[in-house]
Amino acid sequence: MSVDTQQAPPRLDTDELRTLDAHWRAANYLAVGQIYLMANPLLTEPLRPEHVKPRLLGHWGTSPGLNLVYTHLNRVIKARDLNALCVWGPGHGGPAVLANSWLEGSYSETYPDVTRDAAGMARLFKQFSFPGGVPSHVAPETPGSIHEGGELGYALSHAYGAALDNPDLLVACVIGDGEAETGPLAASWHSNKFLDPVHDGAVLPILHLNGYKIANPAVLARLPEPELDELLRGYGHDPIQVTGDDPDAVHHTLAEAFDTALDRIAALQRAAREEGATERPRWPVIVLRTPKGWTGPAEVDGLPVAGTWRAHQVPLAAVRDNPEHLRELEAWLRSYRPEELFDADGRPRPDVLACVPDGTRRLGATPHANGGLLLRDLPLPDLDTYAVPVDKPGATRHEPTRVLGDLLQDVMAATAGRRDFRLVGPDETASNRLQAVYEATGKAWQARTLQVDEHLDRHGRVMEILSEHTCQGWLEGYLLTGRHGLFSCYEAFAHIVDSMVNQHIKWLRVTRRLPWRAPIASLNYLLTSHVWRQDHNGFSHQDPGFVDHILNKSPEAVRVYFPPDANTLLSVADHALRSRDYVNVVVAGKQPCFDWITMDQARVHCARGAGVWEWAGTEDGTREPDVVLACAGDVPTQEVLAAAQLLRRHLPDLAVRVVNVVDIARLMPAGEHPHGMSDFEYDGLFTTDKPVVFAYHGYPWLIHRLAYRRTGHRHLHVRGYKEIGTTTTPFDMVVRNDLDRYRLVMDVIDRVPGLAVRAAGVRQRMEDARLRHHDWIRTHGTDLPEVADWFWGG
Amino acid sequence: MSVDTQQAPPRLDTDELRTLDAHWRAANYLAVGQIYLMANPLLTEPLRPEHVKPRLLGHWGTSPGLNLVYTHLNRVIKARDLNALCVWGPGHGGPAVLANSWLEGSYSETYPDVTRDAAGMARLFKQFSFPGGVPSHVAPETPGSIHEGGELGYALSHAYGAALDNPDLLVACVIGDGEAETGPLAASWHSNKFLDPVHDGAVLPILHLNGYKIANPAVLARLPEPELDELLRGYGHDPIQVTGDDPDAVHHTLAEAFDTALDRIAALQRAAREEGATERPRWPVIVLRTPKGWTGPAEVDGLPVAGTWRAHQVPLAAVRDNPEHLRELEAWLRSYRPEELFDADGRPRPDVLACVPDGTRRLGATPHANGGLLLRDLPLPDLDTYAVPVDKPGATRHEPTRVLGDLLQDVMAATAGRRDFRLVGPDETASNRLQAVYEATGKAWQARTLQVDEHLDRHGRVMEILSEHTCQGWLEGYLLTGRHGLFSCYEAFAHIVDSMVNQHIKWLRVTRRLPWRAPIASLNYLLTSHVWRQDHNGFSHQDPGFVDHILNKSPEAVRVYFPPDANTLLSVADHALRSRDYVNVVVAGKQPCFDWITMDQARVHCARGAGVWEWAGTEDGTREPDVVLACAGDVPTQEVLAAAQLLRRHLPDLAVRVVNVVDIARLMPAGEHPHGMSDFEYDGLFTTDKPVVFAYHGYPWLIHRLAYRRTGHRHLHVRGYKEIGTTTTPFDMVVRNDLDRYRLVMDVIDRVPGLAVRAAGVRQRMEDARLRHHDWIRTHGTDLPEVADWFWGG
Repeated sequence: MSVDTQQAPPRLDTDELRTLDAHWRAANYLAVGQIYLMANPLLTEPLRPEHVKPRLLGHWGTSPGLNLVYTHLNRVIKARDLNALCVWGPGHGGPAVLANSWLEGSYSETYPDVTRDAAGMARLFKQFSFPGGVPSHVAPETPGSIHEGGELGYALSHAYGAALDNPDLLVACVIGDGEAETGPLAASWHSNKFLDPVHDGAVLPILHLNGYKIANPAVLARLPEPELDELLRGYGHDPIQVTGDDPDAVHHTLAEAFDTALDRIAALQRAAREEGATERPRWPVIVLRTPKGWTGPAEVDGLPVAGTWRAHQVPLAAVRDNPEHLRELEAWLRSYRPEELFDADGRPRPDVLACVPDGTRRLGATPHANGGLLLRDLPLPDLDTYAVPVDKPGATRHEPTRVLGDLLQDVMAATAGRRDFRLVGPDETASNRLQAVYEATGKAWQARTLQVDEHLDRHGRVMEILSEHTCQGWLEGYLLTGRHGLFSCYEAFAHIVDSMVNQHIKWLRVTRRLPWRAPIASLNYLLTSHVWRQDHNGFSHQDPGFVDHILNKSPEAVRVYFPPDANTLLSVADHALRSRDYVNVVVAGKQPCFDWITMDQARVHCARGAGVWEWAGTEDGTREPDVVLACAGDVPTQEVLAAAQLLRRHLPDLAVRVVNVVDIARLMPAGEHPHGMSDFEYDGLFTTDKPVVFAYHGYPWLIHRLAYRRTGHRHLHVRGYKEIGTTTTPFDMVVRNDLDRYRLVMDVIDRVPGLAVRAAGVRQRMEDARLRHHDWIRTHGTDLPEVADWFWGG
Repeated sequence: MSVDTQQAPPRLDTDELRTLDAHWRAANYLAVGQIYLMANPLLTEPLRPEHVKPRLLGHWGTSPGLNLVYTHLNRVIKARDLNALCVWGPGHGGPAVLANSWLEGSYSETYPDVTRDAAGMARLFKQFSFPGGVPSHVAPETPGSIHEGGELGYALSHAYGAALDNPDLLVACVIGDGEAETGPLAASWHSNKFLDPVHDGAVLPILHLNGYKIANPAVLARLPEPELDELLRGYGHDPIQVTGDDPDAVHHTLAEAFDTALDRIAALQRAAREEGATERPRWPVIVLRTPKGWTGPAEVDGLPVAGTWRAHQVPLAAVRDNPEHLRELEAWLRSYRPEELFDADGRPRPDVLACVPDGTRRLGATPHANGGLLLRDLPLPDLDTYAVPVDKPGATRHEPTRVLGDLLQDVMAATAGRRDFRLVGPDETASNRLQAVYEATGKAWQARTLQVDEHLDRHGRVMEILSEHTCQGWLEGYLLTGRHGLFSCYEAFAHIVDSMVNQHIKWLRVTRRLPWRAPIASLNYLLTSHVWRQDHNGFSHQDPGFVDHILNKSPEAVRVYFPPDANTLLSVADHALRSRDYVNVVVAGKQPCFDWITMDQARVHCARGAGVWEWAGTEDGTREPDVVLACAGDVPTQEVLAAAQLLRRHLPDLAVRVVNVVDIARLMPAGEHPHGMSDFEYDGLFTTDKPVVFAYHGYPWLIHRLAYRRTGHRHLHVRGYKEIGTTTTPFDMVVRNDLDRYRLVMDVIDRVPGLAVRAAGVRQRMEDARLRHHDWIRTHGTDLPEVADWFWGG
C-alpha cells in the first residue's frame, strides 16, 4: 500500500481538516512555547528577551511529527471509539506529548496546578527542562506514557508487551528513524511472530522518518523507498507510506493511512477471532515521511534549518541576545495564529478540541498507561504443595528451578482465564528446567510449525526469542500495563539488558514518588545456569556481575536474593511475585542441589534474609564462635557446609558458626537500603572481632562494598568468583577461584588466632586434596568421587 | 538469485565433488570424535564404553553446516587465491572449526603437541570440553578466529570491522539463525551502508538456517522463503538461496552459490575501484538451509533427531551406559568411512586435503585473525602542539574533548594513507566536540546524500550509527585484525555494550596467555557527556556505572582514567592510543573546564596516576595535613578546589592537602591490580589517620571497594553520584548528590576533630549558600552567578 500525497483523494471534509490542523497548530505552538518561553505565553505583548528562558534546552526537531500523530490518533480514537495507548519512541519528544496532554485536559487532571488556561500554560512552558520541572523526554511524569524516550531502542518491544493479553487495545508506536538503527529496535520488529491475534491486541508501528538523528541522516530515511518497503515486508508488515511537506495534503493522506491501517487490523482480528483464521497476519505499518522541525524556521543565519539536522535541537539559539533571532521566534510562534487557537483566558477553543476523545479514551488518560490501576494480585498457590520434604538437612537433592517450575505451572493454570501472567526468556525455559509450565500453556508462536515441534502454541503465554532485549522489552511493557511476569535468563547474559534494566529502575524510582502512579508488579529475574555451573559452556558464560550492576541503583527499588536450595527458592519466588515496584533478582541453580531446610524454616529464613544455621555449625549456646563461615548462593553454601564438616572432623574443638545470607542487601547498613541490618543485628550474627570467612556467589568485593561500615569489617575475608573461568568440571571451577571447601578450611586455619601451628597438618591435608583433585580431573574429566558423591547429612 | 537444488546444473566435476565431500566427511568425523571420544580415535578397534568421555558436553547440531561452509570456502580460496577470513558466529561451533584447522594443518602449527596424525587426533578429541582443554565455542584459542561464539550477536559487526580498510580481504561470516534473532545482529545488517567498496574489503554473510536454536524453531527459518528474501533485500543484499539435504546436490549448489557471490563481489569492487561507480553496491548474501545435525542419527530412542532441535547438543546421550547408543555412535562414526579419509597413521589422505589452500591462505593461518602480527604503532604527534598553556592553575578554561579533537584530527591526517585508525560513535562525534576530525576525514556513508549533509564521505573513517552495539562490534573487529581506534560515547549509554565489552575483556585475558597471539591495540572508550553534565537530558542520561562494571573484570586488561582537565586528557589519550591488549576507559567532560596543570605537569601526574596538588592545598612542607581533600573526575576536581578555596578563606589555619586521582586503579592494593599502589605510597598520599573527604565522579562505594584494605580506610568519606538525577542546572546536580563545594566544606568540618564547634558558623554559611542556590535556580533556571562565574586562580 502506498498512499502518496500527489494521488490521494481528499478524505477529510473541510471542517475536519480545519479542526485537525487547528489541533496540530495548537500543539506545535505549545511545544515551541515550552522550549522557549518563561512568560508571555499567549504573546499578548510583543516578545521581549526576558520572556525567554536563559537556558534553551529543548529539542524541536521531532515535535511537529509527534504532534501530527497525536492529532490523528485523536481523530481515529474518537471516530472509532478505540481503546488506545501510544508508545512515543523518539528522544526529546516531551514538548509534543506534554502539549497534547495539556490540550486534551489529562495534564491538568494529573497535575491540577497546571490548569488549562493562560496561568497553566505559563506553568507548562516554564517547567519544561527547568530546575524542579519536567524532563525533555517523554518520561514517567508524562500522563499516558509507559515509555521513557531518553535511551532509545525499546519502543516497539514495549508496545508489544502492552498489547499482549489486551485483545481490545490498540497500541500505536511511534518509532523515530534514529531509534530504528538500534539493535533492540531492529530485533523487535519480529515480535509480530509472537502476537496472538485472538488474545492479544494490535500494535500499529508508525515509523517516523524525519530524516536525521543528532547530526547525521538516518539510515532508513536514506533507503530508496522500494528498499525500505521490502525491509518492512520482510519484517512481516504491510507498509503504508505517507510522504509530504504540505500540511493539508499530509492531513488527508495520513487520515487515509490510519483508516486503511485500522480497517485492516479490524479485518485481521475478525478473521482470527470469528472466522478461525490461523495464518500469521500481515499487520500494517505506517511510514510517515515529514520534514524534521517542520513548520519551524526555514533558515537561520543564512543556513537551512527546517528539514535538516540543524532542526534537531533549538533552531534559534541566541534569542535573548540576538534581536533578529528574537524577531524570528516571535514570527514563528505567531505563524500558528495562537489567537485562533486559544481564547483570551488561554483556553483552547472548541475547534482545537474537536478531535479530542473523551475520558479514558484520551491517550493521556488511559488506565493502561498507569497499569497499577488495572493490576490484580496474582493467584499464588500454597507453597507447601511444592515444598520438598526435608527430614534432615542435606540428605536429599532437588533441582531448585524444576521445583519452581511446578509452582509456575500452577500459576499459569490459575491465570488461564485472566491471562495476566507471562514467562519470558531467550529460548531457555526448558534449559533452565522450568518446562513444567508447558503442561499449562505453550510457547507463543505464530510462524510456521512442523510436526516435530513441541509446545508451540498460537495462544501460549511463554515467550521465547533469542533476544534478551526483546524479552526484557516485552516484559516491561506487560508489567507497565498492569500484569505480572518472570524473566528467566542465563546469569552471564543478563548483562545484555544492563542498560534496559537501568532505565526501568529509574522509571520505578520516579513513579514511586508520583502519587497518581499506582504500583505495578515487580520485574522479576530468575538468573539460573549461573557462573558455577557453566563449567561446560566455559569462560564466556561465566559472569555473576549483574547483581553488582543492580545494587548500584536506587536501593528502594532493587532486591537481590540467593536462595540456597529448592524450598528457599520457592519462598523467595513467592515473595517476588507478590511484590510491587521492585526489580527482584533471584539467583538460583538448576542443577541438583542439597535440600537444606524445610518449607517452614525457609519461610522464616527468607523473611529474615540472613541467619545462623545452628545445625551446620557447632552452636550449643554455651560459647562464642571462634570463626564465622558465611555463605550466599547455592554453590558457596554447599562448599561452606562441606568445610564445616571438614572442620568438625579435623578440628573438633573449634567453635564454628555458619551464617547463610539469602537477601544480600541485609549486609548493607540500615540507612542505605530498606533491607539493611542494624549494626546490632549484624554484630550479633557476624560478631565484631571474630574472623568471618564469607563464601559468596559473585565477585567478592561486592560483599566488602556492602559491609565496609561494619565494626567487624576488618575481620571479613571474602571468597568468590575472581574472573577465572574455563571449560572444566564443576568442582574445578570453585577450586580455581579459591571458593572450595578445602580452601575455606585453609582460610579458617590461617585466620583463627593460634590455629596456624596447631592445624598445620590439617592445612597440608587440604592442600593435598586440592592437588589430588587437579590430577584426577585431567585424566578422568569428572570430579573426584569424594567430591562428586559428597554427602552432608546422610 | 535463487539457486535451488532441484534445478541447478552440476558445476563440480566428479573429482572435485569427491574430494570436497571427503573433506566434509573428515571434518564431520572429527567433530563427532571431539564430542564423544577420549580413545580409539580411528576406530581401529570396536568402540567400547571406556573410549567414550564420561561427560558429553559438545554440541553437534551446528557442526555439519560449519564444516560444509569451511570446506567450500577452502575450495574458492584455493581456486581464486583469495585472501580470506571467516567469522564463525554460531554458538558451540568449536568442534567444526577445530576439525578443519586440524585438517588443514594450522592447528598443529599453532599447537605442535596436537600433531596431524593418530596421536594428535586422540589429543584433539580428548581436549575438547575437557578439563585443561579447549572450549566448546569457537574461542581465542581457535586458530583463525577473531570471534568467540559464546555470547551471540556480534558476528556480522565483527566481520565488517575486519573488512574495513582491508581492500583485498574477503570476510565470510556465518550467522546462525539463533544469533540472527538478537538485537546486535539485527542492527548490524545495515553495516553495508558504511562499507566503502574502494578502500574496504568485502563481507559475505552466510545465513545458516538449520532451523532451530536450543529448543525452539528459529524465527528466520520459519519465514516463507519470499518473506525472508524481502527482508534480506530490504537490508540491501542480494540473496542467494541454497536449500537441501542431499549432500551431493548441496555441494553442487553451494559451490555455484559461492562462485556467483564471489563473481558479483569482484564485479562490484571493480566497478567502484576501476570504473568510478558510486552507487551503493547490493552485496550478495548466501542463505544456506540444511538440516540441523545433518548426517547424524536420524532417530534416537524412537524420536526424530537429525533435522530437529533434538540434534542441538549430544544426539546420543547415554553412550557409556546404553549399548544401543554405543552401537549407534559407532555406526554414525563409521558412516563417514574414516578408513577412506585417514591413513593408518591417522594422517588425512590426499583426497581429503585436495581443497585445502596453502600457507597463510588457510583460514586457520591468516594473519588477519592474529591482528597483532599486522599492527603498526600509531603515528602520534607531539602533545605539546595541542597542549593548552597554563600560566597558573584555574585561570583559563577549555573544553577538554575539543582539545583532544585537534589531536585526533592529526592522527586521522597522519593515517590517511595507512588507513589504520577509525573513530566510532553513535552519532555523537560532534556532540562530543571532536568535530575537528572532519578536517581530516569524513563520516563513512554509502547511502543517499543530500545537499544539506555535512562531512558525509564515501571514504571517511569516522563511523557513526545510532547503535552502540554496532559501533562496538565494528571497532572490535577492526582492532582484532590489527588496527587502532577510539569509541566516543555518552557515559550512561556505554552500559548498552556492557555484555560486549565483557566478552572482549575475556578474549584479551585468554589471548594474553597464548604465546602465539600477538598483542593488539587497546579498545579505547572516551566517555564524555557524563553524568554531571547531563543536567539538560535528565535522569535517563545519568549513569556513571560503566567503570564499576569494567573494574569487576580481569585487572590485567582494564584501565580507567579520570583526567581532570584538557592537558591531562591529552596525556591519558596518548597513553591509551599507544597501549596494547587493554580496555581503556577515559571519562572526560566536553564542557568548558578549568585548565589546572601544564602539559609537562600533566605527563608526570598521569604517569603517577595520583598525586598531591601542592598549589591547591596549604602544603608548605612544615606540617601534616589536618584533612585530605581527594578528587577523581573533572567536576569533582572543580568542587574540591572550590572547597579548598572556601576552607582557605574561612578556616585559614586548617592544613588541607588536595590529592587528585587520574588512574583510579591506583587506589587498589598493589597485589590486586598492576597499577595498584603499595600501602607505603597510599599512606604517604592519604595518611593513615587523617580524615579523607573524597569527591568521586561516580558511585561512591566504588572508592570503598577499591580502598577497603588500606589502613586509613575508616577515615575515608566518599561523595559521588547517588542515583539522584533530574533535569536541572549543572551545579544543582552536584548539590543534590552532596558533591558540591559547600557540602565538602561541611564534611571537613564534621570530620576534623575539634572543628565542629569552632567552625559552626562557617558550616551554617555553607548551608545557607546551598539554600540560596536552591531558591535561585527555581526562579532563574540558571546557576547562581557566584557559582557559574566562580574562578579559582584568577
